[in-house]
Amino acid sequence: MRYELYYWPTIQGRGEFIRLALEEAGADYVDVIRLPEKDGGGRQAMLDFLADASQERPPFAPPILKAGKLVLAQTPNILMWLGERHNLAPKSEAGKYWTNQLALTIADFLVEAHDVHHPLAKAFYYEDQKKEARRRATDFVPMRLPKFLGYMERVLAANPASDRHLVGKRISYADLGLFQIVEGLRYAFPKAMARLEPDHPNIVALHAMVAARPRIRAYAESGRRIPFNEHGIFRYYKELDG
Amino acid sequence: MRYELYYWPTIQGRGEFIRLALEEAGADYVDVIRLPEKDGGGRQAMLDFLADASQERPPFAPPILKAGKLVLAQTPNILMWLGERHNLAPKSEAGKYWTNQLALTIADFLVEAHDVHHPLAKAFYYEDQKKEARRRATDFVPMRLPKFLGYMERVLAANPASDRHLVGKRISYADLGLFQIVEGLRYAFPKAMARLEPDHPNIVALHAMVAARPRIRAYAESGRRIPFNEHGIFRYYKELDG
Repeated sequence: MRYELYYWPTIQGRGEFIRLALEEAGADYVDVIRLPEKDGGGRQAMLDFLADASQERPPFAPPILKAGKLVLAQTPNILMWLGERHNLAPKSEAGKYWTNQLALTIADFLVEAHDVHHPLAKAFYYEDQKKEARRRATDFVPMRLPKFLGYMERVLAANPASDRHLVGKRISYADLGLFQIVEGLRYAFPKAMARLEPDHPNIVALHAMVAARPRIRAYAESGRRIPFNEHGIFRYYKELDG
Repeated sequence: MRYELYYWPTIQGRGEFIRLALEEAGADYVDVIRLPEKDGGGRQAMLDFLADASQERPPFAPPILKAGKLVLAQTPNILMWLGERHNLAPKSEAGKYWTNQLALTIADFLVEAHDVHHPLAKAFYYEDQKKEARRRATDFVPMRLPKFLGYMERVLAANPASDRHLVGKRISYADLGLFQIVEGLRYAFPKAMARLEPDHPNIVALHAMVAARPRIRAYAESGRRIPFNEHGIFRYYKELDG
């Protein structure tokens, strides 16, 4: 089955967590909104999809994955479904829920990483909340960021099967998610990350393990991966990187 | 099996979503941290649980549900598990993921409702971010709140099986979650809600349907439900209610 992914066409954003899972799985998919407008792409097509009044189960926001008749939204929800189908999570009940739990913790942290630069509202420009962003960064960089990294390092160290996999000894969508968080943090907070990484060797090793996966590497080298930029979740504003 | 719930003892918070599911299911559970200290309760017991270095799968934060050997955290994750076991979600794959999707959208909105009064950091006092909270409220109240309510109203209207259930025609943990959101919003934003409710009759009807469930009503009347207060997620600050 050819999946259809619907996500904003110019940022990695939450869509990238889905793309990484699809790429690692070697799944057949179309990144619909990135197609030319004549083929169904473009921002307006995304807005039309969201507004489509005929849907019995309308999504609130992208990313959205269409798998035949099934239409799934919410990043951790899509990942859980892909995890089951493509062997990116354990089959056991305990393993399945644990992987979901980690993906939800990653999703929560992603909101915090975003809100550093947009503490007041997504709808306001960064320029109109720069002072507030700086105050939020005084909590995020020294407190929240180490708390999150410390937690993930602890999970890796506590995993009896592997210290470079979050769950068991095989790659899971939780590993892909943590890889993507590290990628984003290195882009947005290079100074803070340079300082913190030596204390988090398992996270650094997990990141390298994922980066070396043949399909992930091929994806990174393909030119299809949208570069980070100042429209996405992770943005580099020097003044926020402590 | 007697479940053990671990959550902060003086607020409804995220724990309340779990409590409502347990109550509606008629499940046997102990609200551990609300017990006297000599019986294992108290804030320190919560902190000790989180810091316990012997855990192979440590939770990042409460709520936490212990079900025998299984330890689950993250509200939507616990709800999904309880939904499967206690018939608070459909058994079909599509129905199961749709219910999870709605719970995730409710969880996202909950963060926004919280961050109205704490836009800069949970770690700072409200008094130290009052001005910023007021600016965030100028986006939340007229934009985000109606967007969320409009979406849920649309989901209810689009459900072919019932306009007072989000999923199919039976109660689900998504219904319980939306009920709790309405409860919180009525407490925190009474003026805004009085204005918005007439345009959202399906949400109002769902709220009444849940409130009338015998076990939910018994719980509300039991004195066990912690009242809303200015330490939780939903707080009433007159200046934020537009």
